[in-house]
Amino acid sequence: MKLRELGENRLLAQLLPHLPSERSVFAGAGDDCALVENRRGRKFLVLKTDCVVEGVHFLSQANALDVGWKAMMRPLSDFAATSAVPQFALITLIVSKQTKNDWVKKIYRGLSRAAARFQISIVGGETSGTRGPAVISVSVAGFVERSRCVLRSGGKIDDDLFVTGRLGGANRRRHLRFVPRIEESRWLTKNFALHAMIDLSDGLGADLPRLARASKVGFDIDKKNLPLNRAATIDDAISEGEDYELLFAISPRNSARLQMNWRRKFPRLPLTRIGCLIPQSAIRNSQSLSGYVHFK
Amino acid sequence: MKLRELGENRLLAQLLPHLPSERSVFAGAGDDCALVENRRGRKFLVLKTDCVVEGVHFLSQANALDVGWKAMMRPLSDFAATSAVPQFALITLIVSKQTKNDWVKKIYRGLSRAAARFQISIVGGETSGTRGPAVISVSVAGFVERSRCVLRSGGKIDDDLFVTGRLGGANRRRHLRFVPRIEESRWLTKNFALHAMIDLSDGLGADLPRLARASKVGFDIDKKNLPLNRAATIDDAISEGEDYELLFAISPRNSARLQMNWRRKFPRLPLTRIGCLIPQSAIRNSQSLSGYVHFK
Repeated sequence: MKLRELGENRLLAQLLPHLPSERSVFAGAGDDCALVENRRGRKFLVLKTDCVVEGVHFLSQANALDVGWKAMMRPLSDFAATSAVPQFALITLIVSKQTKNDWVKKIYRGLSRAAARFQISIVGGETSGTRGPAVISVSVAGFVERSRCVLRSGGKIDDDLFVTGRLGGANRRRHLRFVPRIEESRWLTKNFALHAMIDLSDGLGADLPRLARASKVGFDIDKKNLPLNRAATIDDAISEGEDYELLFAISPRNSARLQMNWRRKFPRLPLTRIGCLIPQSAIRNSQSLSGYVHFK
Repeated sequence: MKLRELGENRLLAQLLPHLPSERSVFAGAGDDCALVENRRGRKFLVLKTDCVVEGVHFLSQANALDVGWKAMMRPLSDFAATSAVPQFALITLIVSKQTKNDWVKKIYRGLSRAAARFQISIVGGETSGTRGPAVISVSVAGFVERSRCVLRSGGKIDDDLFVTGRLGGANRRRHLRFVPRIEESRWLTKNFALHAMIDLSDGLGADLPRLARASKVGFDIDKKNLPLNRAATIDDAISEGEDYELLFAISPRNSARLQMNWRRKFPRLPLTRIGCLIPQSAIRNSQSLSGYVHFK
């Protein structure tokens, strides 16, 4: 079977159970970040890697500064989804012999600016040649307090579902310039008990079912309520991906206080209740939500 | 300027000084692994990433099990060079839509076997499509006691230089099956004070000058003393690379005891004194040592 027929979810589902794992791993492959016990601390060590590939995540003619920025920000968006604080990054740059030195310098400048935005140290750099498209892979290590880490799996029936910002239309360059919602996520877990959270990288239609599956619940979304970017349609918001906004589940008891305090703290960033979690038995589930799936 | 004219050393030298770095970074980009302070511990958190690229590090027709094995073992060889204990790994797999599912499964089986060999947990997996050659990138996190970590930079004038195993001839498949010298390295730092160490991935002719430069010393090697693999020439041993043996510097006062104890502990693995460190002013330095350089 070829990979494009298999799809990333099924591919990972088939590989993950066989990966070696020790007892000190609290959350391994399958969530946004890996969480591993930090000997005698109340903190988890948090690990995440992600990559951008020429022709897949960016076009050859894209501004190299933007490409470097995006390469760093993608794994950081997973830190936001976990409410973790990123601290250290390793870079792997795979480019052909024909690549201009100036392009590589701009990539690194973009990476460095993005790292500096969150006080992250770049502590390692590898380079390799290739005969194919350029690849920039970024691995990030950091921490999260045990009491503040948020997984995909903690959602409960009746939880309200919120998204930050607006969805859809990221293809028009914004996907290269986004700022992960780390500040917002850290504020959220400082002030509220979130039950589950994920970042919207593959689109609401792919990421919401992931959160629901991990939490063993269903969901009910009012599509008319989705916060849309200018010129984006509801379908764009569901299937385009690359929004890098946060989707989280919280007890409905806290919703009013959350919305009031959010408006005061982040007056320019919308926070929208888009629906709620329901029992898995209810069938309204994934009725028409379908998102971008790798290899499809 | 194109990258192939620049060379990896100069490329990194040009990029590294501009990378953001916080005070908690003890050794960042430029050594085998990054060492970062582990809040209130006597241990460093150790981070390293490395990749293998189809057509560069392995041939398309290579056994996928071997390729997965090698992809995991390469960063582990840097852990050996630092005398660090690897614990957690993240995998990034970049393959074309045409790739057979079976090939991917074998890659993961190779990665998992290699991880299990050193009790490492694979805590994350990312996949991406590409129109080009396959890439497998592996990031590893672990620790090292402050008193046992070994950098490239601690070599002193008059130190003896030792290499483990035999050099040259790795191209003939052995480079896909190597076992990083982690056990040997941990034994060395438990019993001896090593001044500097590096793993021989790019060949003695490239890696020894790196250790000497980092230590601000010169070196004097007796090429006739190099321990050669069967059918390998002295030139192979100097320039082929992919030996993944350890090269380290130790006070000559400890050499005799080291050699005696080593023979008892590792009777089947040679340990060879190949030369010593000398003042930088002495010119015999890099006379005819030239190794494999990326982009050349």
